[in-house]
Amino acid sequence: MTPATEFSASLPPWLRDELDALPDRLASAEDRVALVNRLADRNWHAGNGGPFAAAVVERDTGALVSVGVNVVLQEGLSGLHAEVMALSLAQVGLGDWDLAAGGRDLELVVNWRPCAMCYGATIWSGVRSLRIAGAGPECEDLTGFDEGPMPADWRGELVRRGIEVHEGVGRDEAIAVFAEYGASGATVYNASR
Amino acid sequence: MTPATEFSASLPPWLRDELDALPDRLASAEDRVALVNRLADRNWHAGNGGPFAAAVVERDTGALVSVGVNVVLQEGLSGLHAEVMALSLAQVGLGDWDLAAGGRDLELVVNWRPCAMCYGATIWSGVRSLRIAGAGPECEDLTGFDEGPMPADWRGELVRRGIEVHEGVGRDEAIAVFAEYGASGATVYNASR
Repeated sequence: MTPATEFSASLPPWLRDELDALPDRLASAEDRVALVNRLADRNWHAGNGGPFAAAVVERDTGALVSVGVNVVLQEGLSGLHAEVMALSLAQVGLGDWDLAAGGRDLELVVNWRPCAMCYGATIWSGVRSLRIAGAGPECEDLTGFDEGPMPADWRGELVRRGIEVHEGVGRDEAIAVFAEYGASGATVYNASR
Repeated sequence: MTPATEFSASLPPWLRDELDALPDRLASAEDRVALVNRLADRNWHAGNGGPFAAAVVERDTGALVSVGVNVVLQEGLSGLHAEVMALSLAQVGLGDWDLAAGGRDLELVVNWRPCAMCYGATIWSGVRSLRIAGAGPECEDLTGFDEGPMPADWRGELVRRGIEVHEGVGRDEAIAVFAEYGASGATVYNASR
């Protein structure tokens, strides 16, 4: 066959419809995590992908730059995790592959710690802060997803690269989403072994 | 601003033009690595991104499924490394987010060991084999790119997930590409710190 030459990725229809109604600013940590927890829950119910969502905001003001959800099932591409969507759409919106260009100070907000792939994507993106609802084994235990092997000191490696890590706000709500997902029998899209 | 809702990624024009002339099969390890070394060298000279290329082939026959090069600069997206392009385009071509679906046995061929992000992307893709020209510090030392923090036993973590690792064929040729790139003063697109 002739190799494919391009691919594309879109936010799900329900999220596109909702964009204009999202707040312009997510001032508090609680506001930021509540948004990604809500979008994560909506996303798997809609069948687009796993129970994961992300947003990019200005760290100080909370001005919303982009949102993303996992669209692996919708798009048929294993790399389209929530963080990849949010970071890529932030770069589209700002017109630069380096989100720190021009002194911008942006935060990636996610409803759990990034998987092995999204961990690297976060580093390359230029965000200066990573805010996660939690980082423990609850996500893998409750959902059945493999989140992949991480460097032993993954938090320290981020900090050494100029990325602050914040965690804990919205943790119980994130776990509640994973628990409902795990109980539903929805598709776990780790690759076949 | 209203958040962006979609992004897309294409192979560079020169590579699209060349697709029909690529061999249908890359039977030997030497053939496979020679292709990615050649495309990596062409890619940075063309200004599309870094000196990195990848291909997905059927492991046994070498039938070519997809090719990819780093298009970070061309597309303005930090996540569009060669492996992400090749894996995503293989999934587009085969119509499945799991490259192992249906018992397919595919190999990802890259001109050096994947960065932290592409390491995770490889695991999620469903390939059963990773072939790299090399894995040492030469890439970072010669090009100036940060390849990111890796799990201590990154090879073992792949093998435990059903992905064989092959390395060494085409190593000197890969290093020669990095050396020329490093001497050229071309853009190193790690995010600002």
